[in-house]
Amino acid sequence: MMPRLSDTERQELLPALDGWAMVEGRDAITKRFVFDDFSAAFGWMTRVALAAEAMNHHPEWSNTYNRVEVTLATHDAKGLTRRDVELAQRMDQMAAGLVKR
Amino acid sequence: MMPRLSDTERQELLPALDGWAMVEGRDAITKRFVFDDFSAAFGWMTRVALAAEAMNHHPEWSNTYNRVEVTLATHDAKGLTRRDVELAQRMDQMAAGLVKR
Repeated sequence: MMPRLSDTERQELLPALDGWAMVEGRDAITKRFVFDDFSAAFGWMTRVALAAEAMNHHPEWSNTYNRVEVTLATHDAKGLTRRDVELAQRMDQMAAGLVKR
Repeated sequence: MMPRLSDTERQELLPALDGWAMVEGRDAITKRFVFDDFSAAFGWMTRVALAAEAMNHHPEWSNTYNRVEVTLATHDAKGLTRRDVELAQRMDQMAAGLVKR
């Protein structure tokens, strides 16, 4: 099983993520992505879904029209692991040029 | 603009839906779909997304692994319209044989 992030890893990895925040009361990270419209949002979700399935590591996410709220944590580890950091980075890479600033 | 469902339409259309419930405190309907795994859940979401985009009527939905929680309402009408009933029916048709009972 993937271990939870150590304190040292947290200090190094989490601040380096772009716009992700800790979830209150839970060892998880969250980010809201806003796209131009539903097509852009769901197109991005589909790319992320393919990557997530290949990683066997899946997001919790909700979508309303052009907005997607994502929460990442590792179920088995009951908290954040390196896989969450990796999926967050992939999501950001795939959203580059698509999200509203 | 599509009008909200009349009382008569509500009595006729909503009880005929399969497993949809009113959202507390809001003129909207909700249903939880449970699939075998993420692939089945997201495959279904993708079919629904294509239909929703063609209808220009989009769900509010959240996904965690094999579960999808859907809420339907018509933003412009601030409540339920026939388009929500239609999208609910399409979602159920597309989930047939895929969801756990």
